Amino acid sequence: MRRDLDAREALAAILERTPVLGAETLALPAALGRVLAEPIVSGRRIPPADNSAMDGYAARAADLTGASETAPRELPVAFEIAAGGGAERPLRAGEAARILTGAPLPPGADVVVRQEDTQRRGDRVLIQVAPPVGEHVRHAGEDVQPGDAVLAAGRRIGPAEVGMLAALGRGFVAVRQQPRVAILSGGDELVEPDADVAGGRTVSSNSYSIAAQCREVGALPVYLGIARDAPDDIESRLRAGLAADVLVSSAGVSVGDRDYVRGVLTKLGCRLLFWGVKIKPGYPLAFGAFGDAAERGPLVFGLPGNPVSAMVTFEQFVRPALRKLTGHTRLHRPTLRVTLAETLRKREGRLHFVRVRLQRDGERVLARSTGNQGSGVLRSMTEAHALLVFPAEASELREGETVWVQLLDEEFLAADAPGF
Amino acid sequence: MRRDLDAREALAAILERTPVLGAETLALPAALGRVLAEPIVSGRRIPPADNSAMDGYAARAADLTGASETAPRELPVAFEIAAGGGAERPLRAGEAARILTGAPLPPGADVVVRQEDTQRRGDRVLIQVAPPVGEHVRHAGEDVQPGDAVLAAGRRIGPAEVGMLAALGRGFVAVRQQPRVAILSGGDELVEPDADVAGGRTVSSNSYSIAAQCREVGALPVYLGIARDAPDDIESRLRAGLAADVLVSSAGVSVGDRDYVRGVLTKLGCRLLFWGVKIKPGYPLAFGAFGDAAERGPLVFGLPGNPVSAMVTFEQFVRPALRKLTGHTRLHRPTLRVTLAETLRKREGRLHFVRVRLQRDGERVLARSTGNQGSGVLRSMTEAHALLVFPAEASELREGETVWVQLLDEEFLAADAPGF
Repeated sequence: MRRDLDAREALAAILERTPVLGAETLALPAALGRVLAEPIVSGRRIPPADNSAMDGYAARAADLTGASETAPRELPVAFEIAAGGGAERPLRAGEAARILTGAPLPPGADVVVRQEDTQRRGDRVLIQVAPPVGEHVRHAGEDVQPGDAVLAAGRRIGPAEVGMLAALGRGFVAVRQQPRVAILSGGDELVEPDADVAGGRTVSSNSYSIAAQCREVGALPVYLGIARDAPDDIESRLRAGLAADVLVSSAGVSVGDRDYVRGVLTKLGCRLLFWGVKIKPGYPLAFGAFGDAAERGPLVFGLPGNPVSAMVTFEQFVRPALRKLTGHTRLHRPTLRVTLAETLRKREGRLHFVRVRLQRDGERVLARSTGNQGSGVLRSMTEAHALLVFPAEASELREGETVWVQLLDEEFLAADAPGF
Repeated sequence: MRRDLDAREALAAILERTPVLGAETLALPAALGRVLAEPIVSGRRIPPADNSAMDGYAARAADLTGASETAPRELPVAFEIAAGGGAERPLRAGEAARILTGAPLPPGADVVVRQEDTQRRGDRVLIQVAPPVGEHVRHAGEDVQPGDAVLAAGRRIGPAEVGMLAALGRGFVAVRQQPRVAILSGGDELVEPDADVAGGRTVSSNSYSIAAQCREVGALPVYLGIARDAPDDIESRLRAGLAADVLVSSAGVSVGDRDYVRGVLTKLGCRLLFWGVKIKPGYPLAFGAFGDAAERGPLVFGLPGNPVSAMVTFEQFVRPALRKLTGHTRLHRPTLRVTLAETLRKREGRLHFVRVRLQRDGERVLARSTGNQGSGVLRSMTEAHALLVFPAEASELREGETVWVQLLDEEFLAADAPGF
């Protein structure tokens, strides 16, 4: 087991060990937010035929040269084409056909005149414009041709992709599986949120914040409950999590007397790969894995017990692994360049993640510490928009300096105004 | 009914009519992503008592002055305090007590020495550091005091808020309701994704992209299916949607012959408030409402039928309304300042939303049109990261100019590297 890694080494060790999950086939609406596990090649032409983009009249542009509001062209309405139907016959020179949005253009027609630019007179129509060939016509295949590689494997499925897959007739689609994350909590002092906390007991809140972090990144939490400080209880709960893709112990996998978790993990066949990362908060992070390349068991993260340390180490190390499992290639939170609104100091040696609030200031964004950076102060996480990366070797970041932050709260980006 | 509004007028008319939904009480894990409908005031002290942040030894700082690795201080280990337990008696001067993470500090102790900084010798311990008062002690109430206003109503519940609510013993919490959006599709040419498209039929893909847009913003789509071009069918389907908060007709509420939707809506008691917005794509947008301030029925959006127009008008007008219903105050997509990588031209008069791809270029972001801007070309939406706002009065935006875009694809912000 390696010890005292720096943050980059730890992340590299984790990602090296993290596979991409296999595929599953989902009904299209359920695939929203997932990552495509197959390339999508069209078997269709979309639209299937030249069709009308408007309700109005199909005509030949050559028949309308010079037509205007003051000098309209009068044409007989030869027939009508409904949206779901087809033309009875080709359109002849000097004729118009009534056409509805989405209806196929009759052979011979090359333009659609919007209803608003016409006046109907019994079985004839006055056309008040002289449109260019192709006006208000959606051309066959202008969106997609048969054989087109429409979406590549690895693409996240957003609403436009859902619409496109529907249009291609793909009611079912292969996507990367959702990682299941078994969460174990442990400690005789811990209770569930509905319990009495008299006598210094503490709610196992980490399990709930971690489960929420899993859900936000598209993983499926499986909460194994609170293990007592006893190997038997820990073992039976951990066994219930072995079928998951990731096992997160929020109990900590530490060097303390009561750290039975580590012993039980080893007994069950987990190999611990590292312990201790030179960061603050979050030093006592452990990482291990079950099985080998041939037969994979869950990845194992032993997160520190302090609420902030647990959330921050999840952000830095578990979240990117879950993104990789899910099939994403860009694994990390958005990073922003911001201006520091106060001077920060620390000792050299460990990289600090400083909880900061952000504030827009014209074109700049200002960052300011949320105050008490104690690793038990969860409230400062609720107030933080971002984590400022205070490099290991630095001891001071000065007011006015430009620094990088990792954006945790994407709501910060939501705008007050629509941009128009 | 007003006609030919500009984009700002249309948005203002919609938001003026849009209420904030009432509250519902959810079990905490289900409240993730919702907006708090009650202020959260703590009834607890967190942590409840001074306690240890480490496994190690509780002691008095005054007894350890000058201790170091080469000159350790030796103290008797008077007793042990387990995480779930309490101290048997106060710590006296010159004593240490074995203490585990999370265990309450015994009266008299003012410091915790980490196990790593000690050596155990039978019933005595050698302490190799001289810590300041308070080291590795989590102080009672350092996170939360009874009576603290911890979270304000209106706050989005993210993972840190979930953890905080759990810690406060709040297993149930009042949040804003999720808007239900009834989606009607209509047209004799439309079929579901599993149907044969021979003879020029088209998949009702808008219903699926709109449902996905609803889900992404936290609303609950209710798909009413495809109405035939017949008033009876439209009416029975619309009636099934009247209990929703929002009714979206992707059929279009237009001036065409077969626009039965508008007639049926009026018959059912909907008042159309405007039709036509001076934008491209998306001009034929309609907005109306059922009921009055006293007895509210659904808001009604008649979206244009073209796939891109439907998605773009949803983005501009339906999404902000859904955000308001859900309790958000910042209603709009993130806007970014980007550099235009090509010259764009259009006629003055309508505001254009140009589908663009973004590309990082050092500190800048470059924007480039996705190509064919036809409103039937859904593929260009799958390729777009953002919509560029090309103002109504402008006719040219030049290569190199700085312009605003609305960011649709937040995955664009995901980073390749962690920022450390």
